[in-house]
Amino acid sequence: MDRPRFVIDSAEAEEMAEQLGQTVLQLLRSLVKSAQILARPPISKFHVGAIGMGSSGRIFFGVNLEFPGLPLNQSVHAEQFLIANLSLNAEPCLKYLAVSAAPCGHCRQFLQELRGAPDVKILITSSEDEKENEMNNFNDKDQEFTPLSHFLPHRFGPDDLLHKDVPLLLEPHRNGFSFCDDLRNGKINGGDDVKHAALEAANMSHAPYSGCPSGVALLDVEGKIYKGSYMESAAYNPSLPPAQAALVAYVASSGGEGYERIVGAVLMEKEDAIIKQEHTSRLLLQCISPKCEFKVFHCTKN
Amino acid sequence: MDRPRFVIDSAEAEEMAEQLGQTVLQLLRSLVKSAQILARPPISKFHVGAIGMGSSGRIFFGVNLEFPGLPLNQSVHAEQFLIANLSLNAEPCLKYLAVSAAPCGHCRQFLQELRGAPDVKILITSSEDEKENEMNNFNDKDQEFTPLSHFLPHRFGPDDLLHKDVPLLLEPHRNGFSFCDDLRNGKINGGDDVKHAALEAANMSHAPYSGCPSGVALLDVEGKIYKGSYMESAAYNPSLPPAQAALVAYVASSGGEGYERIVGAVLMEKEDAIIKQEHTSRLLLQCISPKCEFKVFHCTKN
Ligand SMILES: [Zn+2]
Ligand SMILES: [Zn+2]
Repeated sequence: MDRPRFVIDSAEAEEMAEQLGQTVLQLLRSLVKSAQILARPPISKFHVGAIGMGSSGRIFFGVNLEFPGLPLNQSVHAEQFLIANLSLNAEPCLKYLAVSAAPCGHCRQFLQELRGAPDVKILITSSEDEKENEMNNFNDKDQEFTPLSHFLPHRFGPDDLLHKDVPLLLEPHRNGFSFCDDLRNGKINGGDDVKHAALEAANMSHAPYSGCPSGVALLDVEGKIYKGSYMESAAYNPSLPPAQAALVAYVASSGGEGYERIVGAVLMEKEDAIIKQEHTSRLLLQCISPKCEFKVFHCTKN
Repeated sequence: MDRPRFVIDSAEAEEMAEQLGQTVLQLLRSLVKSAQILARPPISKFHVGAIGMGSSGRIFFGVNLEFPGLPLNQSVHAEQFLIANLSLNAEPCLKYLAVSAAPCGHCRQFLQELRGAPDVKILITSSEDEKENEMNNFNDKDQEFTPLSHFLPHRFGPDDLLHKDVPLLLEPHRNGFSFCDDLRNGKINGGDDVKHAALEAANMSHAPYSGCPSGVALLDVEGKIYKGSYMESAAYNPSLPPAQAALVAYVASSGGEGYERIVGAVLMEKEDAIIKQEHTSRLLLQCISPKCEFKVFHCTKN
């Protein structure tokens, strides 16, 4: 398989680092450019790559996605892609992050949803910093990473709004919703599996602020299903919508394939939700894959 | 008139401060609570108030707006409201900002669009900080304000993407677009004035990254027109859409009135724009004022 990969397991990461004569943390920096190549920014042409290491030692890729025909607030930043990628792979914790450009405030805010966010170590590999690092001659690798708390001091975050016991973004969620639409109604592409995948995604969704979890499942021409869970931010606007999260799964799994291969999509959201993903999810899917069938189903707490 | 006001002129600000035995900077802090009361956050119930002082000595109010029925990324934060309010009143520069809660990363990023952003002085008045300040016994007022550069170090901003000569957010914009739709087509509520207002708003819009300026004009039941210009962020997602900017004008001018008094809306955007505000603007207006007539017109560079 020559498909670009978005996850590297820990044994392979160590092997790659050894072959390059690097530490694994140096490897994170080295991989940033290969992530940048995978970005899909048709509007800005500004390729951002983010490489993260989780507590398992696995390495994850993140890239930015932009969507012509929609407002810019529908874009997915590389750091958000990365977090969605960790979530897809049930990685409980982000330890290190190397990124090609200074993380924007929106992403610094989104990262606050992680347990121990202030301690996530960040390295910016943009040219200016590269130069500095070359002068330092790759000494003292660990110290080039700077904690997130430095990048967003006096943060607004989950602590300001949630009880301590509420699970945070990468922690297991079991929202306990089930279908409230009659499943016999609404035949869809890919059959009930797509609906069940969307429900599963909604049940793993992080939506503690609105209480409105949601999930999207995409179906491609080969019948493969890609799930994405809505990820909410304490600051509201940086939240990652479920259709975007599902596209992260699609890009990460299908490699370089185009969006037009997505032929079906199901959004599952809470009945009578105070926030609704339906209309904007439909817009996104119509925009990237005009022939994609888009259906909405509702779920309810048992 | 008992309508709440969202701008205080400099002479009146000094008078108010004197009556309270405060400096004008102390007055900024004192006004935060009266801004919070004006917030419209039906989802979070979390009232945020932001008070800003411009280089003219005028004082501006900002409040947060939330919209049930839409995704959270359609929300307007108090700091964004404030900046849109400065723009509406042709205030060229924000000097001081007092805000009821720690500004989120999304807003810290949005503020980067201002000339001299790193030097904007910020004071957070939330209870914890209040306590500290009481202990300090209101000494040394100026020093309680902390520059934005402290809140978003190693920023990503306009410097990373724009030539020095490009006007920044509160600087005069003359985008030079004119109608490309035949004005005789498409009779609308409020007549041509609403269309011209929308074009004017588009011509004042800050959209240097996409090259797609846009503007919205709203018409209320009394025939009053409210203009909002799209405000783009170097980081894309924190951009303030034109319909939201027009709602800021409506809330700031109409005081406590409901959105259902908005009966007409015109969006003006660039023909063949790579980013389109049309669909999400329509969603917002349908959501807050279902009977509002919404029309789209296109403009083109002469
Ligand atoms: Zn970002
Ligand atoms: Zn904010």
